[in-house]
Amino acid sequence: MIESVLEFRVRYAETDQMGVVHHANYLVWCEMGRTDLLRRLGASYAQLERQGIFLAVSDARMRLRRSARYDDLVRVRTALRRLRSRSVTFSYVVEHTDGRGTLAEVETDLICLDSARSPRKLPAALLETLRRARAPASVEGTIDVVAGPNTGVE
Amino acid sequence: MIESVLEFRVRYAETDQMGVVHHANYLVWCEMGRTDLLRRLGASYAQLERQGIFLAVSDARMRLRRSARYDDLVRVRTALRRLRSRSVTFSYVVEHTDGRGTLAEVETDLICLDSARSPRKLPAALLETLRRARAPASVEGTIDVVAGPNTGVE
Amino acid sequence: MIESVLEFRVRYAETDQMGVVHHANYLVWCEMGRTDLLRRLGASYAQLERQGIFLAVSDARMRLRRSARYDDLVRVRTALRRLRSRSVTFSYVVEHTDGRGTLAEVETDLICLDSARSPRKLPAALLETLRRARAPASVEGTIDVVAGPNTGVE
Amino acid sequence: MIESVLEFRVRYAETDQMGVVHHANYLVWCEMGRTDLLRRLGASYAQLERQGIFLAVSDARMRLRRSARYDDLVRVRTALRRLRSRSVTFSYVVEHTDGRGTLAEVETDLICLDSARSPRKLPAALLETLRRARAPASVEGTIDVVAGPNTGVE
Repeated sequence: MIESVLEFRVRYAETDQMGVVHHANYLVWCEMGRTDLLRRLGASYAQLERQGIFLAVSDARMRLRRSARYDDLVRVRTALRRLRSRSVTFSYVVEHTDGRGTLAEVETDLICLDSARSPRKLPAALLETLRRARAPASVEGTIDVVAGPNTGVE
Repeated sequence: MIESVLEFRVRYAETDQMGVVHHANYLVWCEMGRTDLLRRLGASYAQLERQGIFLAVSDARMRLRRSARYDDLVRVRTALRRLRSRSVTFSYVVEHTDGRGTLAEVETDLICLDSARSPRKLPAALLETLRRARAPASVEGTIDVVAGPNTGVE
Repeated sequence: MIESVLEFRVRYAETDQMGVVHHANYLVWCEMGRTDLLRRLGASYAQLERQGIFLAVSDARMRLRRSARYDDLVRVRTALRRLRSRSVTFSYVVEHTDGRGTLAEVETDLICLDSARSPRKLPAALLETLRRARAPASVEGTIDVVAGPNTGVE
Repeated sequence: MIESVLEFRVRYAETDQMGVVHHANYLVWCEMGRTDLLRRLGASYAQLERQGIFLAVSDARMRLRRSARYDDLVRVRTALRRLRSRSVTFSYVVEHTDGRGTLAEVETDLICLDSARSPRKLPAALLETLRRARAPASVEGTIDVVAGPNTGVE
């Protein structure tokens, strides 16, 4: 399975007067993870949009367990969780890089839109790219890259 | 039942290059709704924090149905959904003011923290304030303001 | 002279861990003031963009005098300061609504761009609209609405 | 002279519907540069705040020359420009990492505040730390680290 692992420092502007990262920023961080995962899979989301393919968040579920603070080093691990013909679900774990534990667990569902912002099927090439995220690292693991009832494409 | 109804215009800075409101802003709008609901109930969240009482988002669930655009007039309706001894759940409906339909449905769970940011029970006075949100408008409806097995306080 | 006067409450998400509004938000508030001033002048910036006319900030100068806090009622007063063939300068005063004094003084220069994001002259109709901001309230004051050496259009 | 050079990718959430980075984000990026410059000088701004020393932006001047887009690699170069007993000025150049030219030039003045958010002199230790930013790289260049009429401390 191919994951994205992204590390960065908490920005001052991301804190609020509670002294911790404002919760809305976790969605922004997850978005960075998605961009990075797509890049690791060989795609560029920026390029996709230039081709008129958009992925828009339709649902988000977020559990905040601990607080991140300004200047903390945090890590976002992004994985593909579910792939359907018209949507894709990513899961994210946000954590401190020093092993202090999980900050947040997030899932987002994204639907595919065309240039008129109408729902459409994921293009075949994008579907193929996303399937790579589910491929086992070993050569034996070819189940997910073959289209079929167990490929995760529903 | 006491709700907050808040209306405002979408800011340019809230849009992203997809031409619509970036999804993270819905959490910010819901936060505005919470502040307003507390005010309508006779409390001030700003004042609560000065007293060392914090309400921190622990979970958020968001469904985005349609897109809001720059300069659109939007409305956030905020209601208390569930009240427990240590946490409170608010639900939000975000919609266009012109009846074009629901933009988003959101729920957030908030836990109570003390000035050291440790979990604590909701103070009795705050609990009492929040219960007012569940009081029926009519005088007969006094169930929710009396503590008991069916008050929504678990 | 036609000004925009916009009042709103400080959002929790706009604060940072210093306990006050993060300074970048003043630029967002000024942008809201610009939108509102254009509306008062009879134009819609959203509509302008749909016509392929963009106003992009090229310069900003900001002086922060006092701090705004969460839930404070603040007011942004926006005025046209200078009008040129290819750019326009707006000035802003941000203040508490309760007379506690000025929070910030800001100026932004905006250049006009076409749909390809290339600089262009302000369209005649927009120029005319913006000139209205400089018109004196009294009927005698017609100097600024007549094109000429002293109209502020350089 | 010690500078900070920070490189990162533009986030999707930082764009607006014009398709480029919203101008307010440049102030956020500059803030990241300040944090990094202080770290390179051996200080931690997070640590300073825990000691009750705050640096608050009092003035900002920003010139935007070109636009950055989503997923672009950008670089912020931060330098100390002026040091006074009660304030410090930083200058920033934001640019594409691929040599496409300068995106923005920014300057911010920051004043020193105590834990009650009242203005105070920069602590001697912080002043000493900041002076390091002005030290020439060569051993001959010791003018700026010796207090005196030409040290930039006014």
